Parts: sequence; C-alpha cells; structure tokens
Amino acid sequence: MEIHTIGGYNEVGKNMTAVKVGNKAVILDMGLHIENYITCQGREDVKKITAKELLNAEAIPDDGCIRKWKDKVKLIVPGHAHLDHVGAIPFLSNKYNADIVCTPFTHAVLNTIIKEEKFRLKNKIKSVNINSTYEISSDFKVEFINMTHSTPHTALVALHTPDGIVLYANDFKFDSFPTLGNKPNYKRLKQLGKKGVKALIVDGTRANIEGKTPSESVARELLRDVMIGTESKGKVIIVSTFSSHIARLKSIKEFGKKMGREVVFLGRSLAKYIHAAESVGLVDFSDVEVVKYGNQIKRRLKQISNELRDKYLLVMTGHQGEPQAVLSRLARGELPFELYSEDHVIFSCSVIPSSITIANREKLEKKLKQYGVRIFKDIHASGHAAREDLRDLINMVNPEHIIPAHGDFQKLSALTDLAMDMGYKLGKTVHMMRNRGEIEFTD
Amino acid sequence: MEIHTIGGYNEVGKNMTAVKVGNKAVILDMGLHIENYITCQGREDVKKITAKELLNAEAIPDDGCIRKWKDKVKLIVPGHAHLDHVGAIPFLSNKYNADIVCTPFTHAVLNTIIKEEKFRLKNKIKSVNINSTYEISSDFKVEFINMTHSTPHTALVALHTPDGIVLYANDFKFDSFPTLGNKPNYKRLKQLGKKGVKALIVDGTRANIEGKTPSESVARELLRDVMIGTESKGKVIIVSTFSSHIARLKSIKEFGKKMGREVVFLGRSLAKYIHAAESVGLVDFSDVEVVKYGNQIKRRLKQISNELRDKYLLVMTGHQGEPQAVLSRLARGELPFELYSEDHVIFSCSVIPSSITIANREKLEKKLKQYGVRIFKDIHASGHAAREDLRDLINMVNPEHIIPAHGDFQKLSALTDLAMDMGYKLGKTVHMMRNRGEIEFTD
Amino acid sequence: MEIHTIGGYNEVGKNMTAVKVGNKAVILDMGLHIENYITCQGREDVKKITAKELLNAEAIPDDGCIRKWKDKVKLIVPGHAHLDHVGAIPFLSNKYNADIVCTPFTHAVLNTIIKEEKFRLKNKIKSVNINSTYEISSDFKVEFINMTHSTPHTALVALHTPDGIVLYANDFKFDSFPTLGNKPNYKRLKQLGKKGVKALIVDGTRANIEGKTPSESVARELLRDVMIGTESKGKVIIVSTFSSHIARLKSIKEFGKKMGREVVFLGRSLAKYIHAAESVGLVDFSDVEVVKYGNQIKRRLKQISNELRDKYLLVMTGHQGEPQAVLSRLARGELPFELYSEDHVIFSCSVIPSSITIANREKLEKKLKQYGVRIFKDIHASGHAAREDLRDLINMVNPEHIIPAHGDFQKLSALTDLAMDMGYKLGKTVHMMRNRGEIEFTD
Amino acid sequence: MEIHTIGGYNEVGKNMTAVKVGNKAVILDMGLHIENYITCQGREDVKKITAKELLNAEAIPDDGCIRKWKDKVKLIVPGHAHLDHVGAIPFLSNKYNADIVCTPFTHAVLNTIIKEEKFRLKNKIKSVNINSTYEISSDFKVEFINMTHSTPHTALVALHTPDGIVLYANDFKFDSFPTLGNKPNYKRLKQLGKKGVKALIVDGTRANIEGKTPSESVARELLRDVMIGTESKGKVIIVSTFSSHIARLKSIKEFGKKMGREVVFLGRSLAKYIHAAESVGLVDFSDVEVVKYGNQIKRRLKQISNELRDKYLLVMTGHQGEPQAVLSRLARGELPFELYSEDHVIFSCSVIPSSITIANREKLEKKLKQYGVRIFKDIHASGHAAREDLRDLINMVNPEHIIPAHGDFQKLSALTDLAMDMGYKLGKTVHMMRNRGEIEFTD
Repeated sequence: MEIHTIGGYNEVGKNMTAVKVGNKAVILDMGLHIENYITCQGREDVKKITAKELLNAEAIPDDGCIRKWKDKVKLIVPGHAHLDHVGAIPFLSNKYNADIVCTPFTHAVLNTIIKEEKFRLKNKIKSVNINSTYEISSDFKVEFINMTHSTPHTALVALHTPDGIVLYANDFKFDSFPTLGNKPNYKRLKQLGKKGVKALIVDGTRANIEGKTPSESVARELLRDVMIGTESKGKVIIVSTFSSHIARLKSIKEFGKKMGREVVFLGRSLAKYIHAAESVGLVDFSDVEVVKYGNQIKRRLKQISNELRDKYLLVMTGHQGEPQAVLSRLARGELPFELYSEDHVIFSCSVIPSSITIANREKLEKKLKQYGVRIFKDIHASGHAAREDLRDLINMVNPEHIIPAHGDFQKLSALTDLAMDMGYKLGKTVHMMRNRGEIEFTD
Repeated sequence: MEIHTIGGYNEVGKNMTAVKVGNKAVILDMGLHIENYITCQGREDVKKITAKELLNAEAIPDDGCIRKWKDKVKLIVPGHAHLDHVGAIPFLSNKYNADIVCTPFTHAVLNTIIKEEKFRLKNKIKSVNINSTYEISSDFKVEFINMTHSTPHTALVALHTPDGIVLYANDFKFDSFPTLGNKPNYKRLKQLGKKGVKALIVDGTRANIEGKTPSESVARELLRDVMIGTESKGKVIIVSTFSSHIARLKSIKEFGKKMGREVVFLGRSLAKYIHAAESVGLVDFSDVEVVKYGNQIKRRLKQISNELRDKYLLVMTGHQGEPQAVLSRLARGELPFELYSEDHVIFSCSVIPSSITIANREKLEKKLKQYGVRIFKDIHASGHAAREDLRDLINMVNPEHIIPAHGDFQKLSALTDLAMDMGYKLGKTVHMMRNRGEIEFTD
Repeated sequence: MEIHTIGGYNEVGKNMTAVKVGNKAVILDMGLHIENYITCQGREDVKKITAKELLNAEAIPDDGCIRKWKDKVKLIVPGHAHLDHVGAIPFLSNKYNADIVCTPFTHAVLNTIIKEEKFRLKNKIKSVNINSTYEISSDFKVEFINMTHSTPHTALVALHTPDGIVLYANDFKFDSFPTLGNKPNYKRLKQLGKKGVKALIVDGTRANIEGKTPSESVARELLRDVMIGTESKGKVIIVSTFSSHIARLKSIKEFGKKMGREVVFLGRSLAKYIHAAESVGLVDFSDVEVVKYGNQIKRRLKQISNELRDKYLLVMTGHQGEPQAVLSRLARGELPFELYSEDHVIFSCSVIPSSITIANREKLEKKLKQYGVRIFKDIHASGHAAREDLRDLINMVNPEHIIPAHGDFQKLSALTDLAMDMGYKLGKTVHMMRNRGEIEFTD
Repeated sequence: MEIHTIGGYNEVGKNMTAVKVGNKAVILDMGLHIENYITCQGREDVKKITAKELLNAEAIPDDGCIRKWKDKVKLIVPGHAHLDHVGAIPFLSNKYNADIVCTPFTHAVLNTIIKEEKFRLKNKIKSVNINSTYEISSDFKVEFINMTHSTPHTALVALHTPDGIVLYANDFKFDSFPTLGNKPNYKRLKQLGKKGVKALIVDGTRANIEGKTPSESVARELLRDVMIGTESKGKVIIVSTFSSHIARLKSIKEFGKKMGREVVFLGRSLAKYIHAAESVGLVDFSDVEVVKYGNQIKRRLKQISNELRDKYLLVMTGHQGEPQAVLSRLARGELPFELYSEDHVIFSCSVIPSSITIANREKLEKKLKQYGVRIFKDIHASGHAAREDLRDLINMVNPEHIIPAHGDFQKLSALTDLAMDMGYKLGKTVHMMRNRGEIEFTD
C-alpha cells in the first residue's frame, strides 16, 4: 500500500492524498488553497486562470508526483463540501479517468460550482448516502462514515483495501450535540478499531489546541445570547457567517424568527449553499427570503431602509471582510442602506488567520465603527478537532500508523507529539509527511 | 453629595466606596485583595494577622481617608458574597457604628466566615430580599436590584438620597439566560433611568473586552459537552470550579447524575458555600455527598479508590492550584487515591491573572500531566460585563455621572473611553478616580 | 493661552496643534495620517485628491475648529521632516497667511515634496538653525532645541509667549549616543525647567513601553552584527530601511564599504531624502551610487545580475512591503534581477502596526522565502521615547501642565498614568485631549 | 556508533548525551534541571537530597538507560560551566570510572561547586585549553573548539572516533564581536566540515527564533545606553545579571568606573564565579570590591547607606527574583539599606520562562515599584543561536546527520524544520530524539 501526500501537508489548504494498492488507486480530496487562489484571481481576469497559473501560485495541489500512474486512479472521493477539499476538482479532475463519489450535499455544492463557473467535467459525479459504502471492486470499497464538522454531510472515508483499511479523517470534529444532523458514528469507528485500521490520515489543523473543540450547541447558545440577550430595540441586526455552515444559518434564522423579525439572506454564496442544502432535503428555509444577485439586493435593501429599523434580521456575506461581499459594500456606502449608531453587526465566525484576511476584516470593522455600529464577534465554535478529540479518535480506531494532515510542519508536529505520547514511534508508526511525499506500508 | 473611592480604583480587588450626603453616609463593599491577603498569610501565622499588617500588605482598603467622619456611617452594604467585596468586613467593620445590610446568601456566607475564623463583629447583620428596599430614613434608602453575576443573590445597590440616586453596579453581568435565579431586573433599571440617576459606579474589570460576556447557559453547554461528549468510560472524572459559583456547581451535579455517576463534593470551601446556599433555599444538594474536612476526605477517597473508576464524579477544591486544596494534594500524591493515565480533570474556571496563581496552576497541571491525565480547562463564562454589556447598562440608566471602578488605571481608562464615545466628558461627567479619592457632586 | 489639539490626539498620525496667545497664534506641525492617505490614494487617481477627500478619509487634520481666527496664525512650525508632521502642509497651509519656519533638513524635504508633487504654496518657507530662535515679535518667540529622533534636524519647539513657555516635544527620543548629529540639548531643557514651562505637549507613542528606548548606537551595533557577523560569501545582500533615516543609511553604507562591497541605493524616496540631507551638508554620500527612477533601476539591476553575487550591497525601498517599492517588485519577479537561495535581505526597521502594512510585509516575506532568501528583521531601534525617557524629560523641564499627544486614548492614558505617578492631577495639571479639543490656561 | 540521548531532549535543561563506539564511550554534559532542582530543594533540607529524589523530581538526567555498559565510559566532558550542563556531576559522576575533562574556567567552577557543597568526587578533573585536543586513545580523541556563549571558555566538543566525527554544539552562539575572549573558531569548523562530520548534536533552544542572535557587543551597547544615557544624579544604581556571565559583569564594571562610581559586587554566587574567572586569568577585578557572605553584605550596605546616593554602583544577585538573593532581600526591607523613589534597578538579563521564575520576578518588581524605583529590564542578548546562526553552523560543518538537542518536542521540531528545508530527511538524516533514546549510525 502506497500513500501519496500530495497537498495539505505543508499548509492548511489544498488537501489531496492518494492511496494506491496494487493497480487501483483512490484520490481523497482535491482542494484549493483559498488565500493563494484569491491572490491569483486578484491579478488576472477570473475567466482566464489556468491550472498552470494556479499551480505556480500554489493555489492547487501539485499532482505531478502521481502522474506516472494516473491511469490507475479509479475514484476521486471528496470527504465534504469545503473548497479546500473540493475546489481544485474543476482544475485537476479531468486528467483522471475516474468518477467522483461523495455525499449528497457535497454533490449538490459541486454541481453549483461547476454550473456557475461554466467548467466542463469529464468525470461522472455520484452521490452516496452517509453511512453507506461504494464498491470499486469486491476487494476495494469506499465507506462514508457519518461525521460532524462545519458543513453538512461530512464523512470520514474508510478505504477497505486488500492491504488493510485506510481511514481518512480530514476534516472532522467530535460533536455529540450537533444542531443539525446526527452525532458522529462512534459505533462504526469502534468496530473499525476492532477490525484493525492500517493507517489513519487525520486533520491536525487544531492539534496544537489543548482540550476539546466545543460543540455546535455551544455556538448556538452564544448566538442566542448575543441576539436575544442584548438591547436591539429600534436597531438593525446584521449577521454574517460561513455560507456553507448550514447548521449555523439555521440557528440564526430560528433566533431571528423568535425575535419577531423577518429574516432576509443577501448574497450569492449564501443563496448557493442554502439552495444546495434544500435540494437534498437537509433544511427548509421556505419561511425566509433569499436574495441572490447584486441588483435585487440593492432594490431590496432600499425597500428595507424605508421600514422600521428593527423589523428585519439581515444575514449577509462578508464575514471575512471580503471586499466584494454585501457587508463590505454596505460598510463602504455602496448600497442604498445606511448604518446608524448602535446598529448590531454579529460575526458568527472566526477570522481566518492569514494576513490578507486579517487586514480585510480590520478594514471592515474600522468602517463599521465609523458609523458607531456595535460589533459582536467570534460567536463561533470551530469545526476542527482539538487535541483531546484527536486522542479520542485515535483510541477508538487504534490505527497501526498515523499520518497527520492539514497543516504546516508545526501543526503536524503537534499531532505527532500527541501520537508519540500515546506510544507511537516517529518514523515507524507516526509519519510526518510533506507535500509530494510518499510512504509505503507492507505487512 | 460626596463619593469616596476608598479601594478597588488602583487594582482589581479590595473594593470599598463610601457615599456621604449631609450627615449620613453609606459604605458600599469592604473587600479583600485576595492575592495580597494570601501572600501576607504565607509569611505569618494566620491567627495573628492584624488589620495593620493587612493594610501594609495592601490586602484591605485604606479607609483612613474617611476617618474624620466615620460616625456618620449609618450602614455597610456589601453587594454580593465574593471576598473582594465582603472579605475585609471582619477587619474593618468594627470601627463603624453601623449595621451591615445585604441579601440572604451574602448574609449566610458572612456568617460562615465570621464563625470559622472566630471573628467578633459588633455590627448587626440584616438580610434584605432581592428587589426590595431598606430605609435608613425617609429620605435615604438602599435598594437591592436583582442582578446576575457568578454567585447568587448579587444586587445592584441603588442609594436614594436627598441629592439624587447613586447606582452601585460593582460587580455585574447582563445574563438573560441564567441557569439559577432570575435574569437582571432590566425593568427597574430603566425606571431608574427615567427617574434620573446622579452617579453610576460601575465594574470596569472587563471594559477592555469587546462584545458581550457570554451567558452562564453557554458555560453550562460547554460543561455538558466536555463531561458527556468525551470518552470517559473506565476513567475517573474530577471537576473543580469556584466554590461560590452555586449555579455552576448545580450544572456539574446535574450532568454527573445524567452520566449515572455518584457525585461527591470534597473540600472545606465547597462545603461552606453549598451549605450557605442550601440554608437560604437556593438549591437542594441533598442528592449528593459533601465531605468537608481533611480526615474524612482521606477516608472517603480511600474507599472510592477501591471501586470502579467510573462510578464517581469528584468535585473538589483546587481550581487555581492553591497548594493546600484537595486537587493539589491529590496531584502531589498526599491523598490515598491515585490518578491514572487518561483520567479526566476539568477546570470549570478561568485562571486568575496574577503571577502567583498562574505559577500555582502550572505546577498543578504539570503534576497532573505526569500521570497522563487529560485536562479540560477554561470551561467557563466570566461573571463580569464586557464593553457592550456596559453600553447597555449606561443606555438603560442614563446616569449624569459615571465613575469606573474595580480596576487599575488601564482598565478604568477602557471604560472611560467607552463613556466618552457615548458623549460623556472626561473630568466633567466621567471621572477616573484613584484609591483614597473624593469627588463631590452639586446640583 | 489657548491650546487647540487639532490632530494626532485620537491616533498615531496627522499631528497638528495650535497655540494662541492674545491675537497671535502658531501652528505646530501639519501632518498626514499615512495609512489613511494611502488607502485614499488607492481608490482615486493621485493627482485628483482634494483636501476635502483627504479630510473625509481622516488623512489630514480637521482644522475647521480654528477657522474663526485663522487670520491670527502668524507661523506654521513643523518640528521635523516626517510626513505625519509635515505631509499635510501642501493641503492646508495655503489657508493661512503665515510663513513656515523649520530646520534646514526639514526645509529641504519640504521643498522636495512640493516640487515633486507640483504643489503651489503661498507660504514662504524659512530655515532656522537648530539651537536658535525665530522672533515673531519681541514677546513671542519660537526656539528650536536640538533633539534626537529617527530623522535629522529634529527640534523640540519652545514657544516663548507673554503667557509663558509652551514646549512642543513631539516626536523625540533621548539618545546620548547618536551616530549622526549631536545628543539632545539637555542643558537648555534644564534651563527652561528652571525658568518655568507652562505646558509640555509630548509624544506618547511609546509611553506604554517600559524602560528606555535604545540608542541609535544599539541599532548600529545590531546592523554590524547582522551584516558582518553572518556568512554572506557568494550571496547578494539587500538592506531596506526608512528613507528619511539618514543616520541608519550612513551606518549601512559604512558597513557595506567595510565588507568591500559597492553600495548602490535604489529607489525614488531614498534618492529624495539622501539628496535633501546632502544639500544641507549633513552627510557625504558621494562614494555611493544612487539610482532614482524605474528605468535606470532596471538597467542597473540587469548589469549587477551579471556580476559576482557578493560584489554589491543593494539598499532599496520596500521595508514595509509597499507594493510599488523596489524590493516588492524584485520579489514579484518584475525586475531583471533574480534572487537565489540564501541571499540575505535585512529589514532595518520595525513593521508599522497597521493591518494593511502587516499584510503587505507578510506578503513580501512570503515571496522572499519562496526563493530561499535569509531574512533578518527588526534590526532597529525606535525613534520614540519610552516611559523612562518621558520621566527624564518631565523631570528636566518640570512643566506646570502636561498634554500627552501622538496616540489614541489608550496611549495617551499610559502617559497620563506616568504623569499621575509623578504627582500631576488628571483634569487639573495633566490633560487627556481629543482631536478638535481646546484647553485654556490662565495664571 | 551509538548515540544515547539521555537528558535535555524533552526539555530545556539537564543535558546529557553519551556516544559509544566499540568498547569506548564518552559522556557529554551532566546537567541539572534547575527549576525542578529548586522545587525539590524547597521541600527538603538541602543537605539530604539524594540522587534518587532528584531523579524522581526530574531534576537530573535518568542515566539508567546506559547502566549496562557504564564501564565503557572513559570520559565525562562538560562543554561549559552552566549548571544545566555540569550541575548533575556531583550526583551522577561517581557511578562512572571516568575522568572529567573540560576547559579551565569550567574546571574552576566545578571545583567551587564541589567545595561549597562538600561533595566527594571519585573522578579526576583535568583542564584542557580551548582549541586543543585530549586523547583517550590514538583513535578516539576529544577536541575543544573555541565558541562564544554566555559564559567563558565554552567549547564545541568534537569527538574523533573510528566511526567518524561527532560534533557536540550544545550550547553555542555565533558572536563575531565578543566583548571577552575570541570569536568562534570558524576556521576549524569549516575544516571539520571538509573532513566530514558524521553527526552534529546541536542546541535547539532558540531554533524557533527567526534571524540571528545579537552579539554581546549589542548587549554592551544597551547597557552603556541605560547606565550612562539616563539621569541618575543623586540616585543609587543597582545592576543584576547572571553570575556566570563574566563578559557582562566586566562591561558593567567598566561603565560603573566610567561614571565615576565605586563598584561593589554583593552576593555569594557573584563572588564564586568572579573568583573562578580570576583564578584562570580571564579577568582582573582587583579594582572592584566583592562582598560574599550575608553578614559582610549587611555591614557594607549599612555603611553605603550613609554616603552619597550616587557614589556607588551596586551589582547584586537576584535578577530572577530568587527569594534569598541580595536584591530580593533588599526589596523586602530585610537589609539595612533603603531604596528611594527614582533609584535605578537594571536587570541585565532575560526572565527564564518558567512560571515559578516569572512569579518570583513579578513579585520582586512589584516590591521595587512600591519604592518608586525605576526599572530597566531585558538589557540583554541571548547566549543561544537563533535560526540563521544554526543555518550558518550547518552550512559550515555540513554534517551527515543532525540531532537537535536542548528543548521539548516543539523546539526540536523547529530545528528539524530548518534541517528539512536544507535538504535533510526526517528519520533518515535528521533525528528527533526523546530522553533515554538511542540511535545508531553505520557506514
């Protein structure tokens, strides 16, 4: 069994790993490095970006290292719908004569990306339900195990191969109190543990964070507190969060309703993900209004500006200060809706720790403060496992080998350190890999 | 009207303020500086510490500045039961020919302190219910307004004087979703605001923290997540939190019960505060075991060590690494109960940011890690208002003057900055005071 | 005596203060807020920016508050050549029928700005030597006292008025071991102290920093260590620093020569300030090459790229990651000179703590690291006084009143805190001002 | 060739490594973990501490892992005089039938420790000059190469063995401008590099710090600035630094003399190290007064307190806030010398980043501030190589294998990361070891 660590082992982002056993191989994730992607876009006309340019900008994984046996790739398996796991598919998947198999929500999101950006994919995309298995052959199966994260239908992917089981746990959190969907399939993980797992490839993004990542129910409680537990009479309330975080959007909607406000979602990416979630029956947002495009947004905001300040809850894009998002344009005075002193803006998210994003957010907050707006931020719980969650996972599946993923050397070190504390040996049973690396396991 | 800022204006701790109108005065709080108190204790035999020594060690407020009119003090009013608000009473109150008036839980705690330490107080102590008023004279009344904080029966104290109303809001948080007791009496605060408040003396401990302090319901959710949402089969679970935080202790107990564990409280200060809370009917802890003294604790732990590791939830003192607390002694191997690898220790608290406490906690955690214990910390929500809560309070009561309290110059600056943003003028309507300061308001 | 705190009291930047006594007034500094200026430029064509737009963008001080007596302004006095002290002159000075008086280097820099940007100034500019006095009238004189800072010919400005002396100490550091020019005129400051100073307006930028700001001789030693004490054989060395920091540039040049390298300065702003310094006889850079404009720079770099890698020391603009500076363009591959692995880049500066600048620098460093370049940063000593330097100044001049300047509320608080420790009273003898504020001193 | 990583691979402290080739072995360093040692002392009577107790407290290395071939150990080689490199000798060396070989200053310090603490060592101690070689046998030699660090006579130790050269570079800094002694023997390092180095064991304490560690000449310049460049007329000046840092003490003395002050050294450990340095001819401190013991110190301070405040420069122990050091006792008022407002205290050191030390120092500074003392701290340059120094060393000696030492997993990771950037392969040519680890190199 060969494991090729193609991307996401030098950085957080552009995840891609390949597992090859005999003459069959599976690719796990094909993600973007979002910051590099945006920097790259910034300089060129969007339409013209080529895979080559993205590669140079380190925005997509460099899969040159598996070129020589690309014909053996039978399947491309994105574990969930986030762009750092699926976003490079339009640029890379056509090289492979392989279907794409994923859970329904991931499928729906992929469809949207492809349609909007007018990509043409040769690969067929197939949906597989959570907690079920897809067969490549009688001795090579792909199992999707229910997992919690910050977007729906996230799966841990178990590859059942002739050389043993590879468990791909990238990304995940252990949330026993999710607010949408079921808690992780701990039972199945323990079964695999008993059966024997050859290798665990695992999300180390927050391995350096002590303790447990809080449940989404904690974020929901924070949100309730900040929405309902503050004085907002006569004031506009604006909330912004990750568009793909359907559970969070649902909570926001519910508290808005409870406050007696009409809920309006504004922005392209919000519309996109809500639509994807509704299309697979995850949620019912028919009781809220979703406004997608620029001109409609302008029109709707103009109407709203003529009504009582506290009639609406406005949910909009822009939580990371993205310059073209609705909230940023509002703050710059480019939309027909004025902010007043003591209006509320709630950032139900963390700030992605890249210097560009930090600068964007600071610029946005500075603008908002000039209106005297009250800012509530970090109303959030992460979607990534911390140190003690990782320990629980390792104890459950008891893998022979561990490969930390999704981070730079320092983050991978933190997870390695944990594994070594649990008895794994560096270079023998826990492996610190880099991009374009390869490791082989024999019996 | 004269306001004397006796203690708590150069530091977090040893709160004491006096308000004098005509020939009547009221003292608000008489608190300890706990760190300085402990340092002082460390060097002497506890019994012998005199008020003089405590004064030199800056462990109690220096009330020399109001000596000349001490006979005018008619009442001593502690707002709640924390030691930095009531702890100096045994050392200072005898100087004053004045009753002590407070809410029932505060009264019960005071009784315990006095009894345990064998102090003799000349002052009479009287209980007044929350949301009721005590009359000094027909034109000088003390009103106790229901407020949320990290200990029960916390009151904002409104002094109704011939020269106007002084509102003493030190300490408080705005928690609309408390887990024990009622939410703040917002209605009464707004009434006072309409009536006109001359001066607001207000808790600036966290004025430099943006946003809103999360509700206790958030802490409860964090606790549930970390107690029930982690793998603890076959493992001991130990929790430690502030002994006076009855709401938190109640949550801990409830989740312990839900997990099917027997709940045992171990330690003197836990027993003391639980008993005080039960004595005034706040909670019913009859379904748990409380073990108070050293020898009993030893005996009980020995028994427990012979039973199944996951039969009990042990709640013990020691969350700040206090060297003589139960958890610290356990960690040092001084008690007949051994910790094993992957036992759980949950710190449901923050670390008090003094260098001694930080060192104590680190020493404790280091010891625990040597056993391989899993540590879950900061499972907590603060009891102090952050910037946006302070804004809500100021908007509600709309005071003529603001006096930031409970912090050093930097913390008081942060609250002053907020007040100035809201239109107050430095030196005119918002006043940065120091210990032993005085300010006079005339009409 | 009225003191008007026009700009620089809510932020670090756009300094401007006016002092009015009877029917005569003097303006001290007219500075830009550089970050806001750049943000403003970013959106418009440079040529077209009007004072109105800059005002809205908070890039220049809002002098509307002194409009009603603008005819009384007899003199505009910039204390030194930095843009946050002189940069608003082209946009604001024409309103005033007043000469500009400053030290020779400041004059030379002003001339360059005016010439390059094709401004037309009605005001006459006059040079006054350091440690000499300019007379407005027999009872109103302006004295320029020699002071150390991070640019040459910096002066503390003493206004001798009928109502007493105002000392304007914004910016300054106390450097007893300067590497260019003389140490501060401590003797004169002590004389003024004895004579009696009514008010001290003083640089609080680093009042929150404990201790003493290190001498420029420390920066020189750091520079020597990093230039001469590392292995650079066969490698290019690039250094970047503040273009106005002539003392630093002189040290860089000298160490370059000592290493036997040819020293080449590249970039417009370097050329500008070096030329200004030479024109007033401060330094002699005739033994180095200075290349100013884009095309020349390209040509020269192309030649250099064909020679031995360690023949040159290249000093270039771009220390803050400014996108159009020489180093940034080099890093992006836009110039005909390639960086190789283990080339040295030395940042002899701090990073200006604004989020945009931080992001720019990180982007630049990331690019540099992609070539494998070795980065040496923070090879620097600040030009602003820290807490203990401020204490020394206050002790020397013993002013009746102190007005902290050059910072937001928090920084001004830190200096106020120091003053209060030294016996000043808040609101009585130490004054926390905001932009567009006014304070009057009477005898 | 076997390398045994006995101590200092899980922590900063208690360094000990053994190299075995055939039937001969050498032990490099036998150090204390100072914080653990002090904690251990704190609980017991000093005299009674046994090696067993120190082992349990993790205060000395656990050399059990080499017990089975302890007879093969021919030599114990401490690289320099710091306690974390020599301090365990009295507790461990008697087990080995081996001489101790070191440079003269290290020898002198060892003598002092042994004499003062009344240890009895069976091992013979021999001095070897810097830049010379000691022969165990014709094919096994130990070479001491001149190196800069924060104590004199520090050596890199090159073991010339039949299986190749092991270079032990723990601790070191690359200081090309030392203020005492010569700069590193770069020439010899490059020769070894050409000859071929099998393994480099190297100080990773500051591998996570970017750039270059500043020269001691920078610290000297900082010291001059803060001693001579501040106003100290009429004020006492106290300086405290590491007692073993002879170069620093020499600078302090010289500036004291330059200021026309009499220099008095106070404290046991200062006297000890100064005497050791003088005994081997490193410095001449005959022009200063050294007062060693408690009663003498009291007497001398009493005299000094009756003279002019600015007649003396007092150099005393206590820079880390050690409770029994002279400065701490002075601050607590236990010595007959009073501190006044605006006296100067200079900490020419960093604070050792352990929570106990941080707490000690904070307590000391708090005390000092109560007198109004002016504190100047971090007047220091580290003695440990940063990332770019490490790169220079690796380039010079070009080792086949690298073993990062002197740090926890995170610090070792940082150095490993650098090595990997330079082309080394994890687990193949760069090795992350833990305490009690073993690695074998074959040809």
